[in-house]
Amino acid sequence: MASMTMSAACAQPLAARKFQGSRVSGKSVVRAAKRNVTVKAERDGPVLIGLAADSGCGKSTFMRRMTSLFGGKATPPEGGNPDSNTLISDSTTVLCLDDYHLNDRNGRKESGLTALNLKEQNFDLMYEQTKALMEGKAVDKPIYNHVTGVFDPAEKIESPSILILEGLHPFADERVRDMFDFKIYLDISDDVKFAWKIQRDMAERGHSLESIKASIEARKPDFDEFVDPQKQYADIVIQVLPTQLIPDDNEGKILRVRMIMKEGVENFDAPYLFDEGSTISWIPCGRKLTCSYPGIKFFYGPDTFFGEEVSVLEMDGQFDKLEELIYVESHLSNTSTKFYGEITQQMLKYQNGPGSNNGTGLFQTLCGLKVRELYERISEKEVVTAA
Amino acid sequence: MASMTMSAACAQPLAARKFQGSRVSGKSVVRAAKRNVTVKAERDGPVLIGLAADSGCGKSTFMRRMTSLFGGKATPPEGGNPDSNTLISDSTTVLCLDDYHLNDRNGRKESGLTALNLKEQNFDLMYEQTKALMEGKAVDKPIYNHVTGVFDPAEKIESPSILILEGLHPFADERVRDMFDFKIYLDISDDVKFAWKIQRDMAERGHSLESIKASIEARKPDFDEFVDPQKQYADIVIQVLPTQLIPDDNEGKILRVRMIMKEGVENFDAPYLFDEGSTISWIPCGRKLTCSYPGIKFFYGPDTFFGEEVSVLEMDGQFDKLEELIYVESHLSNTSTKFYGEITQQMLKYQNGPGSNNGTGLFQTLCGLKVRELYERISEKEVVTAA
Repeated sequence: MASMTMSAACAQPLAARKFQGSRVSGKSVVRAAKRNVTVKAERDGPVLIGLAADSGCGKSTFMRRMTSLFGGKATPPEGGNPDSNTLISDSTTVLCLDDYHLNDRNGRKESGLTALNLKEQNFDLMYEQTKALMEGKAVDKPIYNHVTGVFDPAEKIESPSILILEGLHPFADERVRDMFDFKIYLDISDDVKFAWKIQRDMAERGHSLESIKASIEARKPDFDEFVDPQKQYADIVIQVLPTQLIPDDNEGKILRVRMIMKEGVENFDAPYLFDEGSTISWIPCGRKLTCSYPGIKFFYGPDTFFGEEVSVLEMDGQFDKLEELIYVESHLSNTSTKFYGEITQQMLKYQNGPGSNNGTGLFQTLCGLKVRELYERISEKEVVTAA
Repeated sequence: MASMTMSAACAQPLAARKFQGSRVSGKSVVRAAKRNVTVKAERDGPVLIGLAADSGCGKSTFMRRMTSLFGGKATPPEGGNPDSNTLISDSTTVLCLDDYHLNDRNGRKESGLTALNLKEQNFDLMYEQTKALMEGKAVDKPIYNHVTGVFDPAEKIESPSILILEGLHPFADERVRDMFDFKIYLDISDDVKFAWKIQRDMAERGHSLESIKASIEARKPDFDEFVDPQKQYADIVIQVLPTQLIPDDNEGKILRVRMIMKEGVENFDAPYLFDEGSTISWIPCGRKLTCSYPGIKFFYGPDTFFGEEVSVLEMDGQFDKLEELIYVESHLSNTSTKFYGEITQQMLKYQNGPGSNNGTGLFQTLCGLKVRELYERISEKEVVTAA
């Protein structure tokens, strides 16, 4: 199996790597768990994680938060196509499902369908290549060039320890859907999408309010038909909504973020606030912690979602400073951190990224920690991170 | 100092008792704290506790809950007047302030004032006798006979370790008010009083709804003028309100009970739920605990009361069974219990008393535990109870 990228040494199949023992690489290593060094792991292929979300909703920040928990830095394949959509770190590979578009931009002009349409995806190829990667094989994956709108020559992708598929339709095709170990749906509400788009396209790019509204409206039917229904399959849905702390707020700057977590998911124990299985609302601001207006409010409780039992963890508002986050972290349980304050440390690492001071960053981090634990349980390997 | 009652041996001044060491009396003893056996306690007289409340609001149950935490059984002075309003246990003496009424029933007919009126109290005598008891002296206290409406011959009261004054006006006279170590106000809302009175006077005694309404209305102005204002002085106010779990409930069977606790009170640390100083609402019913309709809801948070900082602990609803109480107890902090489950054990002891399945009993018990701790801190003695 010849390596085509600089990172291939890190992305070789698990089966080969298993006999090398621990590989120390600076701050963190992926190594066989002490309790189980010589025993063959029950899984040969990667652990498969899916992230469904609309474009422009912060998937890349989410992915950086998640992959960094496995140690090392995730970068596009070194020496490869600079427009590659792939992110590779020591143990993770993130593939963007846009690479499995059926037609390029011109092709979609001919078909008259949007990139949101299921008919515009090459699900057969997506399935075949995912299956191959899951079997430890390398694949030559197409590259959809977002700049030019055409397909660039394929790039070779080795089978990693953790394979993450992110894009518009990871859970639309049943064959791939059934392969995932864990499914995440990032659900940005229309109000927040609108507020973000106004911020970006009007304030920064000079578009008119009308044109922004029109572009959102034009896209919405296809999004609702082809992307949105996938959230019923997700193990975790992260919903991003306008704050309820300010009456009638439509600025979209202060967010209410809900993490909806399915019950009974293998290798996943939902984080909770104070008392598992009960219903709690918590305003941490008070005598011990002072927050500026409009404060912070947490909620935790059981619910149903698409007819299934879930628990919901919710944060409304944003942190003013680090103290507030560590205060909150110390009251969350089942977070799968490896040391006290790991959530806060992670959030600090990406403090300039969007959502670092609110529930988006917090729940993405929490989600990453749960994925790391899930990986450890399935692979029977331990991810060692430096405190 | 001659004893006039059988319980005098238990009610002798603290100064005399201090040199006896531990006195074991079955299940529980009041003894000098181990850390401080030979050092003179900073207080010679009793610890003084006040309980203000309207008549017929469960003061006697409250008193039984509280005194039982000090061990032994509280009974009227043995061999004394069977209509005595006094309750004496090994270490506690509960005096009813009705004994300090200025006039008897006929006298009030002449004055035209109700027993609620401040002018109908002999505050000078109340002050003198409280002061004497606080100095370790015995007093000859009048007995107001509730059955006959006249004063019976005085009974001798020895100075106890814990003196509790309960009645309509413990905090109305400034001289006595300033002597209390801890002040409690039991505040039954008009709606609940009305519901209770209907239950008792209509269902059990055959009164008409109109006559009950009339008797409540007639009493209310004096109550509001002379009793209610005292709650501003209380360290703890226990408010009993109709439930909010059932919309428009006026049955008064399910109660919402709030314990309003002043901040910065010497020798008192307010109990809290989960996270001190923050704001929390908690529905314990859920995956781990199932409750019948309408369930149970707790609230905890900071507030202000008569311009002073307080924290509020609230319970709405009632317990179906013991399991729910121990579940709740395990999530409360700063309860001053001496062993795990003491609150539940105490509630079980009085399970047939009113309020044993709701916040009334829970907060009265909690209040009693805080008073016990306060007593221990002030007296530097340890109350030993059997688990």
